[in-house]
Amino acid sequence: MNNFKFRNPTKILFGKDQIENLATEIPANSKVLMLYGGGSIKKNGIYDNVKKALSAFDVVEFGGIPANPEYSVLLDALKVIKDKKIDFLLAVGGGSVIDGTKFLAAAAEYEGETPWNLMTDRKPVTSAMPFATVLTLPATGSEMNSGSVITREETKEKLAVGGPGLFPLFSILDPTVVASIPQRQLANGIADSFTHVLEQYMTYPSGASLQDRFAESVLKTLIEVAPEIMKNPSDYKAASNFMWCCTMALNGLLQQGVPTDWAVHAMGHELTALYGIDHARTLAILASNHYRYNFETKKEKLAQYAERVWNVTAGSTEEKAKIGIAKTDEFFKSLGIDIKLSDYTEDYSETGNIVSKRFTERGWLGLGEHKNLTPNDAKKIVEMSY
Amino acid sequence: MNNFKFRNPTKILFGKDQIENLATEIPANSKVLMLYGGGSIKKNGIYDNVKKALSAFDVVEFGGIPANPEYSVLLDALKVIKDKKIDFLLAVGGGSVIDGTKFLAAAAEYEGETPWNLMTDRKPVTSAMPFATVLTLPATGSEMNSGSVITREETKEKLAVGGPGLFPLFSILDPTVVASIPQRQLANGIADSFTHVLEQYMTYPSGASLQDRFAESVLKTLIEVAPEIMKNPSDYKAASNFMWCCTMALNGLLQQGVPTDWAVHAMGHELTALYGIDHARTLAILASNHYRYNFETKKEKLAQYAERVWNVTAGSTEEKAKIGIAKTDEFFKSLGIDIKLSDYTEDYSETGNIVSKRFTERGWLGLGEHKNLTPNDAKKIVEMSY
Repeated sequence: MNNFKFRNPTKILFGKDQIENLATEIPANSKVLMLYGGGSIKKNGIYDNVKKALSAFDVVEFGGIPANPEYSVLLDALKVIKDKKIDFLLAVGGGSVIDGTKFLAAAAEYEGETPWNLMTDRKPVTSAMPFATVLTLPATGSEMNSGSVITREETKEKLAVGGPGLFPLFSILDPTVVASIPQRQLANGIADSFTHVLEQYMTYPSGASLQDRFAESVLKTLIEVAPEIMKNPSDYKAASNFMWCCTMALNGLLQQGVPTDWAVHAMGHELTALYGIDHARTLAILASNHYRYNFETKKEKLAQYAERVWNVTAGSTEEKAKIGIAKTDEFFKSLGIDIKLSDYTEDYSETGNIVSKRFTERGWLGLGEHKNLTPNDAKKIVEMSY
Repeated sequence: MNNFKFRNPTKILFGKDQIENLATEIPANSKVLMLYGGGSIKKNGIYDNVKKALSAFDVVEFGGIPANPEYSVLLDALKVIKDKKIDFLLAVGGGSVIDGTKFLAAAAEYEGETPWNLMTDRKPVTSAMPFATVLTLPATGSEMNSGSVITREETKEKLAVGGPGLFPLFSILDPTVVASIPQRQLANGIADSFTHVLEQYMTYPSGASLQDRFAESVLKTLIEVAPEIMKNPSDYKAASNFMWCCTMALNGLLQQGVPTDWAVHAMGHELTALYGIDHARTLAILASNHYRYNFETKKEKLAQYAERVWNVTAGSTEEKAKIGIAKTDEFFKSLGIDIKLSDYTEDYSETGNIVSKRFTERGWLGLGEHKNLTPNDAKKIVEMSY
């Protein structure tokens, strides 16, 4: 087990009717900017519930934050924060709205040349405006972590920022929201959180027995609830476990004391930036090919995963590991997710080269748990995914 | 899955050589009271390492906090805090030193009639002096929770206090300390943390699939590492998993969204207060009898525990549940722990009556996950444990 430092101060309010607690959780007399996305919250009742709970506050609204939160839109919101002298941000949405809100919380206090320098500085954010979230789409875990990924259409970039200043003050997780989520986004949420766990698990044995079991717990629970959620998103038991899995998958706990490998995410972000493919689907396209390409270094953990998560009892380490990879592909397909790049675009023949070139230009220091994968390795993995 | 609110702001510094970070984690210019127990830290090098790391601070020492931290001793420490104008407390020890330090952190800001009123008020502590811990004995989880149990010899009382103001600012968990812990205390730590998980798990099915798996993860890991730890406490892999299990067993995560039943602890505290039996051993004496007595309400979870934690595959729910109980007793015995009250004292014939009387006097509102166990039920469970 590796040394680690871990702190997660976000308060979670989980369950039915928790939105009512907004009034007491937000600091009194705050001037609140309520941020949301394309307006689905106006159809499912969440908008009304939030507005009602905030009736004692001075509230300004900023809607229209798109999936893969776009820098130029966020600049408009930043202007509102400054013009209206906002002192508390409330994200009401999924990972995109929350990530956008985190960027704004940091940008409001940032003193660099332009707000985009926040993304290119690669420095941890230690101080930001206070903010909180009402989660409407379980997937990214952003509601209980300090990371944010922002897209800039102008330059086709998708970059991450984070730091101890970017934890939400609190997050409200009401599983009843799951009932109104479209099938495609349910599938994305399951695939996204499943892959989040894999990125913190599918490396090499490191003696972190409890951490391994926690990771396997999330994977097994996602596998258990996935068909229930896809069939009946109003099933509260399934919805609540799904929602809590998504949060626990990426709130920092699973990665403590273990090696991690975020290569699938790094490559996936490029596919989203290039083709607009849903984030979760880029992970489903790449994950198993990443494991096939790095089979020798990952086979022990792949076999453990096959045994403990998929109940594979027979075969050698290699055989079990291969079954584990196949099960992963099957799982994504069971969610209705296509797992080949060519299922999403006809314009893929140069994707491997483009991704490799982008990593090279950005001075990528090495992907994978051993930090030894080169841009050329990424090219090959992407090409295996055509 | 039940509604819940969860926040745990304690920062964990886990691993080798983390004591060196004390200098940067304690607020600059603090006047520090370093609290410890019987002096084992002077033999195993931890005292020297802490003093070295604190060389830039003004440090006052208070040693001699006993197991089951004694109120009268803590009153002496409280006087030191006030006389010396201390503004930061550092507990260097196990659960007793940490619990005592929490009491002091609260008492230093308490305005009630006497400090003991803190314990009898039954009000959550929302504000306290800042404090941190260097854990030397994995067991209670106190290093990452906001609870404290204090003993008052004069009245043979053992009571709990806690609240959101009583989380340590940070805790240092260096598994190399495990190497110098005596066998008896290693066994106690394993039994204590194992029972902590059981108290949050052995109730009835509540649809909290992920929470159940997290609990089972801690139980399975403790079972896995117990023989390794007992045989060779210098085994870093085993020691680190043991230490992390103890923390995760009672840092608040496992109890979210599920019913809990702290009856074994409530009864166990009485046995410690009456006979001075080690806390963990009182739990081992009572746990299985509590499950036998409440078999009908707990049998589904007992069977799930037998299946998932002990790999029992055959039999009916009742049969599996009974095997689960027997396995629990065997586990405690495998640690060298006696599981009958008569193994510890000859003076047990009235214990059931005494415990019942104490619960009645204290106006106990009902034990167990259904809050329906009476003082007379406690009497019978204690009598089953003779």
